[in-house]
Parts: sequence; structure tokens; C-alpha cells
Amino acid sequence: MYDIDTLNKKYMNLSDEIYIFDTTLRDGEQTPGVALTVDEKIQIAQKLNNLGVDKIEAGFPAASLGEFEATKEIKSLDFDSTVVGLARSVKSDIDSVLDADLDYIHTFIGTSPLHRDYKLKMSKETIISTAVGAVEYAKDHGLTVEFSAEDATRTEKDFLFEFFNEVIDAGADFIDIPDTVGILTPIFTKELITYAKSNFSCPISVHFHNDFGLATANTLTAIECGANQAHVTVNGIGERTGNTSLEELVIILYSAYGIDLKINNSQLYSLSDFVGRLTGIKMPVNKPIVGDNAFAHESGIHVHGILNNSSTYEPISPELVGHSRKIILGKHTGANALKSKLHDYHIELNDEQFEKVFSQIKSLGDKGKCVTDDDLKAIALTELSSARETPIKLKGLGLLSGAIVSPTATVKLEINGVEKETSNTGVGPVDAALNAIRELIQDTMHIELEEYNLEAINGGTDALADVFVISSDNEGNKSTGRAIDDDIVMASILAVLDSINKLLLMKKTEEELNL
Amino acid sequence: MYDIDTLNKKYMNLSDEIYIFDTTLRDGEQTPGVALTVDEKIQIAQKLNNLGVDKIEAGFPAASLGEFEATKEIKSLDFDSTVVGLARSVKSDIDSVLDADLDYIHTFIGTSPLHRDYKLKMSKETIISTAVGAVEYAKDHGLTVEFSAEDATRTEKDFLFEFFNEVIDAGADFIDIPDTVGILTPIFTKELITYAKSNFSCPISVHFHNDFGLATANTLTAIECGANQAHVTVNGIGERTGNTSLEELVIILYSAYGIDLKINNSQLYSLSDFVGRLTGIKMPVNKPIVGDNAFAHESGIHVHGILNNSSTYEPISPELVGHSRKIILGKHTGANALKSKLHDYHIELNDEQFEKVFSQIKSLGDKGKCVTDDDLKAIALTELSSARETPIKLKGLGLLSGAIVSPTATVKLEINGVEKETSNTGVGPVDAALNAIRELIQDTMHIELEEYNLEAINGGTDALADVFVISSDNEGNKSTGRAIDDDIVMASILAVLDSINKLLLMKKTEEELNL
Repeated sequence: MYDIDTLNKKYMNLSDEIYIFDTTLRDGEQTPGVALTVDEKIQIAQKLNNLGVDKIEAGFPAASLGEFEATKEIKSLDFDSTVVGLARSVKSDIDSVLDADLDYIHTFIGTSPLHRDYKLKMSKETIISTAVGAVEYAKDHGLTVEFSAEDATRTEKDFLFEFFNEVIDAGADFIDIPDTVGILTPIFTKELITYAKSNFSCPISVHFHNDFGLATANTLTAIECGANQAHVTVNGIGERTGNTSLEELVIILYSAYGIDLKINNSQLYSLSDFVGRLTGIKMPVNKPIVGDNAFAHESGIHVHGILNNSSTYEPISPELVGHSRKIILGKHTGANALKSKLHDYHIELNDEQFEKVFSQIKSLGDKGKCVTDDDLKAIALTELSSARETPIKLKGLGLLSGAIVSPTATVKLEINGVEKETSNTGVGPVDAALNAIRELIQDTMHIELEEYNLEAINGGTDALADVFVISSDNEGNKSTGRAIDDDIVMASILAVLDSINKLLLMKKTEEELNL
Repeated sequence: MYDIDTLNKKYMNLSDEIYIFDTTLRDGEQTPGVALTVDEKIQIAQKLNNLGVDKIEAGFPAASLGEFEATKEIKSLDFDSTVVGLARSVKSDIDSVLDADLDYIHTFIGTSPLHRDYKLKMSKETIISTAVGAVEYAKDHGLTVEFSAEDATRTEKDFLFEFFNEVIDAGADFIDIPDTVGILTPIFTKELITYAKSNFSCPISVHFHNDFGLATANTLTAIECGANQAHVTVNGIGERTGNTSLEELVIILYSAYGIDLKINNSQLYSLSDFVGRLTGIKMPVNKPIVGDNAFAHESGIHVHGILNNSSTYEPISPELVGHSRKIILGKHTGANALKSKLHDYHIELNDEQFEKVFSQIKSLGDKGKCVTDDDLKAIALTELSSARETPIKLKGLGLLSGAIVSPTATVKLEINGVEKETSNTGVGPVDAALNAIRELIQDTMHIELEEYNLEAINGGTDALADVFVISSDNEGNKSTGRAIDDDIVMASILAVLDSINKLLLMKKTEEELNL
């Protein structure tokens, strides 16, 4: 609708180079509850280097031995990305950065009245002299120096600008403006960065927090006003509500503004997933760019549009960031979505069968369940073979466990009309029962449990357990199974049998359909 | 640093009244995988009315019988909030809104080339005449009409404005500008809304999606430029990455701009939690305003500041939104935080004991575990009573379950040196064992299991199960217990015994300390 070049001339003052300074391993790792091992930090750093960020803040070397080692090891890998270490404005912290063989330091001091009076208990003059001393000491030792005025956005304007000018005069190479408690909005940011750009002689970096959900927008505004560098983290993790999201900022600049930062965009999704797993801070399904639902469509109107032209309801293509599109079947699913899916699987149903499958999916959706592609295939094939009996039935089960012998299960199954019984052991009763089942059906098929998911149970020990499994046979066919029971062990066994039955029925029907 | 009044004059053109139009129950419910029952919708609507939003979009009455019923029932509750129903620009959809007894309709049609050519297959002229016909029909039947041009932000500018003028001439009371695929940035928004405000004679509403993480910022910008109404959802849920977050927008306007929308801010946290539970879309810990970490502090520097003055690292007070502050102990914890916590509990440790507790907490943190207040109290009290033996020991366990009789557990415990044994039944083996334990210790204490949490298990049936429980006695004392084992049942029993032992030890030590 609007031409970005027109808006550019009207509102923007972009600098020629924009640097991405990633602080996932420092501010990101300060997320309450997160702790990365040295090895995990190295793995993440490797991926950030492959992604192509300009700078990687690897840690706070003076904080602990682990931090020191991680920073030093990451530096030794000789990345294209510059490796940065954090330091307070004290000699011993700067020495730790030097000992870790780094040549780029990010050092800071609090400048706001709150930080001066309550945390540091220093006068304005002492703040300035301490900062200047730190910059001079670091420069004397050959470091590139980036200096942050902590809580800059709550510092008196005149003092903040006096402070930064002194730090720049002392030799700082970059000044960084942190919005430590995330109080900026885009218009405040515009005022601040426009002033800073016209008054400071060195490149300007911004480090914004997300307490109001505006970190990405504020960072974007700062860049529009000429900021030269943005601090970001993967998934936007960090203190409290976190920092600017790397993936959001990079993709907005690339796709809305046509600014190519030489980032390997297609690695963004897998990096997000990797960091989510290592930190334990799982992204919500609705996280922009990288969330499970970022390219997921369920409602009838949306799916209808997407199937005709994927741009109808997508701002960018999922492939750009290495993600994928999902058509989800649920309460809001329309017949169009379902027909398209069945067509993909070459499954043809008559009208009556289609209606039955459609209503099963709607009713699962009404219960709030997501219907996966495997579920749909299984439901459709099961409908096609609905006259058939379940090949395997549970006829008897005995479980024995305790503190002396291994947990033991005795399982009796009816397999295609023939009763068979065996017992087996395992690490727990579920494992024992599964081993017994596997033994009983080994003549019919070889079964592997690909996934066993037990939904977290919150409540009492009599709360319902919801178990979801994926089984596969030795030909690579897969099927899901699900069961809900107030007994965890029983739910697990029923879910496994459900998946095995679906596999057997699907195979039979597929063979007949010649799929 | 900057005065909002100065910025207001420089950049803003606020309208006198700003309406909050909540669409949690319509766009929010279209989140892939979400389905709310009629009763759940009514409960959420009730809370939205109590919160004080101006309008509640209760559903899409023509979509299904459930939607129709929910909308009609919510309308019948006679709220202060206006109840709105969605409708396509077709007579039957509008009739459904009328049949549900609503008097406010939100109707729409796609206007962008993509929607015209691929979804609707209509010419520009037909789009306009269909929309105008819908508005006239709705107005003839006495409805207040809000009209949305779907995918407005990818519609040709001239056509969009011609379209809106025709809709306004036909009698629309509000026009709504949806950013259907979330491609706006604040500067695009500024250009769009400024133009709209000076060219349209009716109030302007915005409905922004969060695909780039900018929905809140864009909505804020629209309001700064004079938009009269914002569409929002609780937790920002909705199609794909969702919509503008109610809680973010309201708190930014309130605390950064001093605009009071007459929202009961202190209900925001509990509403977010409620909607998260009912939709199953759990917010991440770092969600602004309402996330678990929004007011959580762990790192040494931050906790030191917070303990001196809570504003040091917080933009607003947690009480404003009904949330609470958390000092989290973990890898980054400093001695200051720990001393302050122990002081709160009136627990005095000598230096050696303090060091031991401190190192236990650091080492739990290094493993990525969060240490709760209860954990700390238990660790400290356990350290104080470290010479003591565990009062209860598991001496024997037998579990029997299967398909015919109820799961049965036989448990042998040594309680204060005396062996006791009993058996009991339950809905599953864990429940049976717990019932047996409860029976054995009933002379010593009456125990209730307050919480039983089994971490989701992803992997095989031999993956480690991590069980976390909270037990309480009849005096209201609580203690956590945790155990990890490859047998789910054993992990559960050991966690329960762990919590009971901690409770007993704590009570003993507390009695002696006269706490």
C-alpha cells in the first residue's frame, strides 16, 4: 500500500551499516531459571556465528569460573563474529576480559538517580570518573570498548549526555543506550535517538527490554533514526520479560524494509528451537516468526484462502525462516481444508464416509484437541476399514512391581482371534508391559515406540493421565495412539495398543487400495 | 527523561475517547487448536465485563450452533460492555446476529487484490456493492454497524479509501482497519491512520496482528494518531501469532501516557491466567506484564538493586496488575539475595551452614533448576537439622495392578525407627501407594497432597520421570518433594516421601527454634 522508499525519505535516517550484537549468551542467560553449561554455550555460539551475527556477547568473565571458561573457549574458535565480554567499570572485571583473550569489551555503569543513590551510592562526578577510568584502562590494554549507561532511559537528559560525551572523549568506540526496565515507546525512542545521533561523534547502539512488549518496535524505531547497532537475543529471552528478539528484528528489516543484514534467515527457526530446548524457555505457539502457529491455519475462511494462494493469510513465506506451513484440523475446520488434505494422501471417500470423518474431526476439535496429519490419515483409513474389527484386543493384564525384583507385566492379547499371553520385565511397569506386548506381536509385526508423551499432570495422583504415542513398524509406517485414564500405567498401555491397531488396520486398507 | 506532555504536543493527536474492543472470544478463539465451550465463553465474557472493556466480540453467530448460543447467552446477561457479533457481508450472517438479539454487528469483506482475486473472486465494484448492501441491511434492522476491510493494509490505497467512504455513506458507525497478516510497522501505521483521520467522517478502529511482533506498537501508534478504538485479545491470542495484547496496550497507555481507560488493571494478571488455562495457550515466562518472570529477579546485580529499591529494575509495580514480585534463586544468585530471604524466614545460619546452603542453591541453579521459596526454606531447615536422620524410610514396596481388581500397593515404612506395613487400593498404582502411606503415617501426621506434577515425558517409556509434589499437614505447613527415576511409579512414591520427611524435619526444627 505504501512505498517503503517514500516513507524512508519522510521518516527515516538509516545509517549505512547496521550491526547485530547478540546477547543470548549473556543477558539471555540471565533469564531467571536459566543456566547453560560451558558446552551448551559453545554450541549456541557456533550457531550464532553460522547465522552471521556481527557480534556475540559470550558472557560476563568475572562472574564465575564457568563464565570465564565459556568466553575464553568461544573466543578461541576464531569466529567471523566478534566475541564480546561484559564487565563492570572495575579493574578486576576488565582484567578478566583480558585474561579471556578477548579484544572487545562491553562495560557499563548505572547512571540514573535510582542506580546512583540506591545501588551504587555514588555521586554524579564519581560515576563519570569511574566510567572514564574504565574506558581509559581498557583502551590502554588494546580493547575495543562499548560503553553502556545502565538505566539510561531513566537518567536525567542533561546528565546522560554529559556522561556519554565524557566517555566518548575517553576513547569509547561504541556507546550503548540500554532501556534497562523497558519503559520506552516508539515516540520516546525517536526523540532520544534523534538527539543522540546529532550530538555524539561515535556509533550508537541500543539495548532494549520488553517489559511493555515494545522492544522490537523501539529497536526498529532507533534504527530508523540512525542507530548503528542493535542488541538482540534469540527468542527475545533475558532479564524479566526479555530483550529484542533477533528473529523479529532481522525479518522486519529484511521483508518490510528491504534491508539485508547478511543473516542466514533460513536458520532462524532451527536456532530458535535449539535455544528453546537448551534454556528450557519454550516459546509459546503464538511467538512471531518462530512459534508453532506462526504459519498455522485452522479456521475455514483462512484455510480456504491459503489453499488458493498462500499469501492470502501469510505476511512472509515460512521457508524464508526455515519454518513450515501447517493446516490444522479442529473445531473451525472447513470442508475445503479436509478435502485438500485427503487429496494429498490419495484417499478417496464417498460422501457418507467424508461426513463421518469430518464430524469426528469437528468433535475432537470441540474438545480442544489438535488433529495431526497422522491422526487424520488414521481416522480416514479407519473409516474406510470401519467394518473391520480391531485386530488386537487386551484380554488380561497383571502388573507387579516393588522394591526387590524388576517391575513385571503379564499381558494377554487376542491377536486376530487367537489368544496369547506372556510376561516380561522393564525399568518400570509401563516399560515392562510394552516389552511383553512387543514380544507377543513379534510374529505379526516388529514395532518401535518412536515417541512417548505423557502430558504433564497437575493436580492429584487421581487426575487423568493423557498419553500420546507414535509407533512405527519396520517399513517406516507410523501411527499415533492416544488414551486417557486415571491410571498412568493403563493409559500408557491402551495408547500403545491403539497405535498398533491403527497401524495394522491402515496397512491392510492401504494394501487393498494399492496406495 | 522526557515529559509525555511535550511529546504529546510534538507527535500525538489523541482522540478524546478511546474504546477497547475485546475479541478474545472471536479472533482469540480462532487460535489454531483452541476451542471454548459455551460455558467457558460465558465465564470469560463475565470477567471481561468486570474488567471494564467497552465492547466484547462474543463470537461469529452464523458459524455454528455453539457460537450462536454463546453469543445469545452472553448478550442476555445485560453487561455494561456492549456485546458484538461477527458476520460476513451476507444476509444470512447478519440475520444470525439479529436472531442472537445483538444490537452491534461487526461485518467485513476482503478488499485486497489477493482476497478479491483468489478468495472472493469478485470485482472491485461487486466488493463495494456487497459491503454497502450489508451495511444498509444491518442499519435497516436497527444495528450499530462496525465495518472491516479485511486485509486493508495490502489493499491499493485509492481503492481502500473509496471503499471506506462508500461504506460510511451507507451508514457505518465505525470503520475498522485490520492488518490481517501483520505487515505494518509504526511508521506505516502513522502514515495510514493520519490519512484516515483527516479523510473519514466516522470513528476509526484498528485490528492489528502480531506476525512481526509489532501489534502492540502499531496499535499504540494508531492511537497516538487519533484512532478511536483498538481491537485486542487477552494474552494476544488469535490467528497465527495473534493480536494486540489487551494487557500490554492498557498498561502502556496507563503508565507511560497517563491515559486511564477505566479498566480494572489489578484484574489483568488473573484474567490472563484464567484465559491461559481455558484455552490451553499458556503464556511463556517472559510474556510482558503477565508472564511468570515479568517481575522475577535472579542475577546478583539485579537482586541487590531490587532489595534496596524495587524500582531499580522494575518499570511498574507488580501490584498494579495484580501480579507479584519473585526473587528467584539460581545460578546467578548473589549472597545478598539469599541472606535477605533467610532473614524473611527468621532463619539464622552460621557461616559454615550459610556456605553449604548457598552452594546447594548454586548447584541446583547450575543444573537449570529454579529454587522456590519453599525449597529454600526446606534446604535451610534441613541444613540446620542435618545431623538428624530422615524420620521415614521406605523399607519395602509391592505393587499389583491389572485388569480385574483395583491397583493395590503394599508399603512397608520405618517411622522413627518402628517398622509398619499396610496395603491399600487406588485408581492407579501411585494413588494406591499414596493411600497406603497416608494410612501408615496417620498417627504421626495428617497429610494432604496439594499438588502432584509430573513433568511431561518425551522420549521412550524408559525416559526419566521427574515428579514434583507439594504436601501439607493439617496445620497448614507445606513442603515440596522431588524425585527422579526411570520408573514413573517409583519416582512418584519417592517424591511424596521426600516431602513428608521434609515436613517432619522442618516442624521439629521450627519447634526447637521457636519460629
